[in-house]
Amino acid sequence: MFKAPPSQLSDLEADELSRFALTLAQAAAGVTLPHFRNGTKIDNKLADGAFDPVTAADRDAETVIRRAVKDAYPDHGIFGEEHGKEEGTSPLTWVIDPIDGTRSFISGVPLWGTLIALNDGTYPRVGLMSQPYLDEIYLGTGSAARLIRHGRESVLRTRPCDGLEHAILGATDPAIFFGAGEHDAFEALSAKARLRRFGGDCYFYCLLAAGQIDLVVEAALNPYDIQALIPVIEGAGGIITTWAGGDPQEGGQIVAAGDKRTHEQALSILAKAAR
Amino acid sequence: MFKAPPSQLSDLEADELSRFALTLAQAAAGVTLPHFRNGTKIDNKLADGAFDPVTAADRDAETVIRRAVKDAYPDHGIFGEEHGKEEGTSPLTWVIDPIDGTRSFISGVPLWGTLIALNDGTYPRVGLMSQPYLDEIYLGTGSAARLIRHGRESVLRTRPCDGLEHAILGATDPAIFFGAGEHDAFEALSAKARLRRFGGDCYFYCLLAAGQIDLVVEAALNPYDIQALIPVIEGAGGIITTWAGGDPQEGGQIVAAGDKRTHEQALSILAKAAR
Repeated sequence: MFKAPPSQLSDLEADELSRFALTLAQAAAGVTLPHFRNGTKIDNKLADGAFDPVTAADRDAETVIRRAVKDAYPDHGIFGEEHGKEEGTSPLTWVIDPIDGTRSFISGVPLWGTLIALNDGTYPRVGLMSQPYLDEIYLGTGSAARLIRHGRESVLRTRPCDGLEHAILGATDPAIFFGAGEHDAFEALSAKARLRRFGGDCYFYCLLAAGQIDLVVEAALNPYDIQALIPVIEGAGGIITTWAGGDPQEGGQIVAAGDKRTHEQALSILAKAAR
Repeated sequence: MFKAPPSQLSDLEADELSRFALTLAQAAAGVTLPHFRNGTKIDNKLADGAFDPVTAADRDAETVIRRAVKDAYPDHGIFGEEHGKEEGTSPLTWVIDPIDGTRSFISGVPLWGTLIALNDGTYPRVGLMSQPYLDEIYLGTGSAARLIRHGRESVLRTRPCDGLEHAILGATDPAIFFGAGEHDAFEALSAKARLRRFGGDCYFYCLLAAGQIDLVVEAALNPYDIQALIPVIEGAGGIITTWAGGDPQEGGQIVAAGDKRTHEQALSILAKAAR
C-alpha cells in the first residue's frame, strides 16, 4: 500500500501556508458567490456535442487566486484547472480548482467547492475545500484537519466502519465510470455497501473527513480535482489512494475511506478495473 | 392536461395557514437540526435486507408538528410519513414529511427538507420545504411563492426553457426508477437533456421553483413526498403532473417543469412508461 513521502515543510511553514490558503479561499469566495444562483452565463469547453460547462466565476476566481499567490510567493508554481501550469523557481506549487463541481454550481446546488492545495514537490501538504454558500471550509495538513463554519472551528475525524455492509458510499455521478470495467466494479461495490449516494463532487470527501460517510469512489479525476482533499482526508485519519492502492495525487481512479478495513475491502472489489 | 380544482380557501385563510405553516417549520427545525451530523442512531424500517432508514429526528419532528396542529386547529386532519393518518372533522388536512431525504440526512448532505402541506380536501393549497442547515424556506400558495433565507424574502420564479436540449434535469437516484419501463424512459429523457444531476430529494423541486433547473422527474413517491412542493412549484409559475399528465397529489410518477414546453416534451418521452 502507498505511503506518502516525508514532508519537505516544517510545521511552521505548513502553518503559515495554511493561513495563506484561507485568505485565498476568502478572495475566491468574493468572486464565486455573487455568480451563484445569479443567472451566470455558461460556456461549453467542448465542441463535439458533449457538455463541459465553465463560467466567468471559474475563470475569474482562478485569476484572483493566481494574482494573490504571485504577490505573496513569486517563486511558487501554480497549476490550475482554467489557466494551466506556471512553473516556479521553488518546488512548492499551488494546485487549484476554482470551482470543483461546476455542474452543481450551474444547477444551484451548494455542494461545489473551491479547492486549494500546496504541493511541496513530492506530495500535497496543505489543502482546503471552501463552500462559501454554506460558509464552510474544510482545511487539512495531512496530520490534522478542521472545519471552519461561521467562524467556529471543530476537529475533523473520520469514523470507524468495520466493513462495506455498514458503509455509506458517495460518488459524483454514475457517468464518471466510463473506463473499461469501471462501471461493473462500481456497481459490485455499491451492491455491498449499506447506502449509495450520488451528487457530491468534492463535498463527499469532506463529509468523509467529518465522519458522516465512509467511502468515496471516483474515476477520471485530474490532479487539481483531488490534491486539496488529500491533506484533509489524511489529516482526519482517513486513507486515500488510487484503485490500485497507489499514490492518489495525479488523480484518475480514486478511493477514499474513513477506516482502513473498508478501504481494503473496496480495493479488493475495484482491483479488477484498476489501472 | 390536468388542471387543479378551484381552491376552497379564501386568500385570508391561505395567508393565515401559510403563517402557521412557518411556525411548524420552525418547531420541526428545533428537533431536526440538533440531530443533523450528530451521530444520530439510524433504524431500518425494512426487515428483508433492504434499507429504509429512519431516525429519532424523523419521528420526533413529526410528533412536534402534530401536537402544534392539534393545539391550533383541533378539527384539522393530519397525514404524516412516520405516524400515519388521523382524520379531522374539517376537510382541511396537513400532509407532512418531517424529513424528506432521510438518506441525505444520515449522510450529512444538507439537501433534505421538512415538507408541510395544507390540503383543502381537493388539492394542496399551501406548501413549504424547510432546510434549516441552509436556513432556507421555500413557501408557496399555488398563486405565489417565495424563498425566505436569513430572514430575507425573495420571489420564486421558474425560468423559461424552450426545449429539453437546454434543460437541466434533476432526480434523486437512478434506483427510484424500478417500475416497468421507468428506467428506460428516464434514460431516454436524460439523453435529450443538457445536463442531469442526481442527489437532490425535495431540494431539486425548490431549485426548479427558483429558476435554477428546468425539470425534475421521479417515481414511486408518496403523497407526503410531493404535496408540499405542489403549491411552491405552481406558485413560482411551474407545472407539475404525473407522467400521464394527471393530478400529482397522490405521488407515484412525477414530472415537474419550469416551462410548459419542456413539460410537454418530457411527457411525450415518459408516456411509454406512464401508469
